This record gives sequence, structure tokens and C-alpha cells, in this order.
Amino acid sequence: MKKTKPDAIIHLAEQPSSSFSMIDREHANYTMHNNIEGTLNVLYAIKEICPLAHLIKLGALGVYGTPNIDIAEGFFEVNYRNRKDLMPFPTQPGNFYQLSKAHDSENIFFCCKIWGLCSTDIMQGVVYGTQTPEMTSNILKTRFDFDEHFGTVVNRFCAEAVSGHKLTPYGKGTHRFGFIDIIDCNQCITLAIENPPNQGEYRVFNQFDEVYSIVELSEHVVNVGNNYGLQTEIDLVPNHRLEKSDYYYNVDKTNLIKLGFTPTKTIDETLDGMFSDLLQHKNRIKERHEVIMPKTTWK
Amino acid sequence: MKKTKPDAIIHLAEQPSSSFSMIDREHANYTMHNNIEGTLNVLYAIKEICPLAHLIKLGALGVYGTPNIDIAEGFFEVNYRNRKDLMPFPTQPGNFYQLSKAHDSENIFFCCKIWGLCSTDIMQGVVYGTQTPEMTSNILKTRFDFDEHFGTVVNRFCAEAVSGHKLTPYGKGTHRFGFIDIIDCNQCITLAIENPPNQGEYRVFNQFDEVYSIVELSEHVVNVGNNYGLQTEIDLVPNHRLEKSDYYYNVDKTNLIKLGFTPTKTIDETLDGMFSDLLQHKNRIKERHEVIMPKTTWK
Repeated sequence: MKKTKPDAIIHLAEQPSSSFSMIDREHANYTMHNNIEGTLNVLYAIKEICPLAHLIKLGALGVYGTPNIDIAEGFFEVNYRNRKDLMPFPTQPGNFYQLSKAHDSENIFFCCKIWGLCSTDIMQGVVYGTQTPEMTSNILKTRFDFDEHFGTVVNRFCAEAVSGHKLTPYGKGTHRFGFIDIIDCNQCITLAIENPPNQGEYRVFNQFDEVYSIVELSEHVVNVGNNYGLQTEIDLVPNHRLEKSDYYYNVDKTNLIKLGFTPTKTIDETLDGMFSDLLQHKNRIKERHEVIMPKTTWK
Repeated sequence: MKKTKPDAIIHLAEQPSSSFSMIDREHANYTMHNNIEGTLNVLYAIKEICPLAHLIKLGALGVYGTPNIDIAEGFFEVNYRNRKDLMPFPTQPGNFYQLSKAHDSENIFFCCKIWGLCSTDIMQGVVYGTQTPEMTSNILKTRFDFDEHFGTVVNRFCAEAVSGHKLTPYGKGTHRFGFIDIIDCNQCITLAIENPPNQGEYRVFNQFDEVYSIVELSEHVVNVGNNYGLQTEIDLVPNHRLEKSDYYYNVDKTNLIKLGFTPTKTIDETLDGMFSDLLQHKNRIKERHEVIMPKTTWK
């Protein structure tokens, strides 16, 4: 920071896996330590070196949990016993990773208030896709995870389909969640940078495009796979996580749309690109089939 | 835990000072590390060794901040866009210590949900008093802090009055807060132990007796000091903390009263006991007058 005096800082240096944080005490503590103290170090550095810099912090859409009311973007108007106030929307994280993200958000909000820093906290849905326009050569292709800890559900379903495995939604597969294409995710971060908050302001963006249930998602993967000649079956497996399967889910996403966010691709177009990339590595995925089925339990 | 197989665990092993947590980055990180990971270690130990044990966790009343609505006990009924839910009351901590306490509470709530542990989270006001009935001998008297970091406001005012210093409320002295006598605090913890929550239950008690502004508190100290022949002046000093001075403040405290909580002493009776104890050490306090005025700033 001393060297570059940045105008904006995109903080992507967190332990990003729910599942990893739930392995045991050591992994839970590592997640807390890395995410909370790591982010506090960033906040102190901004305060001391470049207090006008805009901190873009990647949060997790999952921190809100599944309340029986609409989920606001960070703050909501509360009416309680005939008085009202604008208050932080209560979070109800479902694992230690999400908890660390909720803690981070509270710490950042406080630093904006007390030191006058400014930050955009991006509550991000599941990001998917293997291609961006910047990847003009094969050597720019990035790591693709499909194991239980670092593979998100879209990656895992595509890897399963490509390599002849059944798709394995957990439980009833009725969980609903927000998803966003990697290209649209980059668009959102660009919009945040180009439209910074005021000094002292902490703002929250809920960043996702469409909401799908896990079974709906698996059906998209099956259908796109058909275009590549794949006949994939869906096989519900017992849920090793502890989470609700049926719930009300209606999440605000107006802040980014107000700044001009326009989704550029349908999920089927992006899945098509993923199949095209992954089929080239079908055998490498097959060789690592043992990482597909979850081995940990959250109980 | 393996040795004693406890029925109840009172967790008092946290870094307990707001002011200490605000010194610098190292102290902020130490507070996060000690409080969050320390408590996670306790939670994992309970899960693995004595999952039926009742965890009594000392929280801080200050984590709620000063919203413009009544402060509930941990959870409140939210009506939002024609739907409703019982949700965690949003916290708005005002320093890194309080933030660590809010983070702890969220982690404990989660462990109760996922592992079926049970816990009482005690949102405690400022505890004061130097005597309990168990202190039957001078060798059982405990440490008395009156420095800016570990001395709470009642201790500091009494130490100032006894040693001929002016009382030094910060700012306008209009901050209002909940206070409780050490004997009544012990009564509350006893009530929590004797009336444990159900397995899987996480409950919150707001634990305080009376609410005073800092200037009201200083007036009580001056008046009780008069009985000991002390003529003490009140001298408002600039506030080195960043906090609101005027706010709505109405905090629920019904859970402990339902269990039978009855305050046993007025604040003036307890202050009388403190003066009686402290006057014996008047010169030792005078010798350490340099620790009274705050040296750190929260900016």
C-alpha cells in the first residue's frame, strides 16, 4: 500500500470455503484467524497509509441465513414498539466460514464509522464460469476445484457430468440460492470501483443474478450436457450439512442495478462454455473421482 | 473438562477491556484472537467432552449500541414488508472489544443450533463493588483497577474521590448505561445455573439493575464521599472515545426478573462499602495518579 497508494483495494485473501471451516476445531480457528485478523490488518493499513482508499470486500450472500422475511441489502428500516430506526440486517450464518464473514462485515462497518474509511461489502452468491474475455491464452486459465471443500456446486455438477458421475444434490435439493456468472461478477466489482461510496460510508451490495434450487441447477447441467452427448442422471444423496431445505427466500438486489448492472449471459450459455473447457480434461477429472463424495460431516 | 465433567461452565477468560482493544492493531488483533478463538476452543471442548454442560458466557451490554428503538433481550419479533420472524437483535458494537463479544455470541448461537449445545449469554452492564459475602478475610480481597484500560467508571470515580482528584466524566457526561452490583451479578449467574436452558437452546439475559448517566453516577460518588468528609469536584474532560453522548436508551431486562432476580443493594450502599475499603489505600492510589488521565485516543 505504501508503494502503490491505491485508490481501491479488492480484498480476495480470505479462506473461502464453508465446508473447509467445518472440518474440525483447527480449521474453524484458522478460518476465524485468517479472515478476521487478516481483514483487520488491511483496515489498519488503509487507516495509516491511504485512508481515502475504497475497500471492496467480498462477503457471502449466505450470511443472512434464511429468515422468514425479505432480505435487505445490509440495512433495513425497523419498526418496533412504535419507534423506528435504520439498522443492520441481522445475519444468521450457517457455518464458521459464513460467521467469519459476518464478523468481518461488522468490523469494517465500525472502522468506516470511527475512522472515516469507506467500503463496499459485496454479499456474493455462488460464482460460476471458467472463461472471461481476459483469458486470451490457455496459460491464463485458472484452477478449477470440484472437491467437497473448494468446489462450488456448479463446478461439482459440471465435473460430475463430464466424467460420467451422477449429479449429487444434497438432501432434497430444494435449497434455493443466488448465482452469478464470473463475467457479471467482474462487472459488479467494476461498477463498485467506478462509483465509490462517500468517505465514512459502509455500503452493502447483494450480488447475484438468478435464484435456483439445487435440483433446478442440476437440471440445467443435465440439459446442457445433452448437447454434448452426455446422458447424466441425478441422484439425491444424504445431506451431511445441517441446513434447512425448504424456506422463504426473497433477496433484494437493487443497489447494483441502480448503478447499471446488466447480466450478460444466461446460465445455459455459461454452462456450455464450462462443458467445452472441461471435456478437454475429462480423464483428469475421472482420475480424481475419489474427491467428489463428501467425507466430512457437520454434526 | 475431562477431569471434572462440569454441569456448568462460567467463561470469564476474555480480554475484558474496550479501551485496551483500541490501543492499536496489535491490541485489536489480540482481542479478536483471544476472545473468538478462545471461546471456540471452549465450544469444541464442550461438544467433544461434555455436550450437556451449560455454557454461561459473559457478554457485554454495550454490543447493542444505541439504536433509536427499545433494546430486546437477544431476539425480537420483526415485522417487515408484511411478513414476520423472530430474529437476532442487531448489534452495533462501538469498539473492538465489543465487536469480539458480538462475534462470540454469533458463534455460540450457531454451535447451539448445529451441535445441540446450550448456553446463556449474559449481556452485562458495568459491574461495581469491592465486597461479596464470600470475602471473609483480607486475603480474599481482589485486585482493584482504576487505570484507563481496566478500571471501569465506578472504580475510577471512587479512586479519584478517595485520593483527592477531581471526577473526570468524558465529554458531556450524558452517556447512559446499565450498572449492577457485584453481589447482584453473582445472584444472576447463580439463577442462570439453577435454571438452565434446554439442550440446543441459546438464550440471552440483559443483566443490569439501574441505568445512570455518567454525570448522575459522579453525583452519587460525590454525595457518598461527603459522608466520609470528602469534598469532591466534577470536571468534565474532553472525550477521547468516539461515541454518541445523547441517545434513546431503553433496554429490556425481564428474563432474570422472571427467574426471581431481586436487587439487594442500592448504589449508595455499595459505594459506601467501596469508600470504606479504598480509604485504607488512599496513599497507594495517590502514588499512581499518573494512570488516571487517559493517554490513548480512539481516532
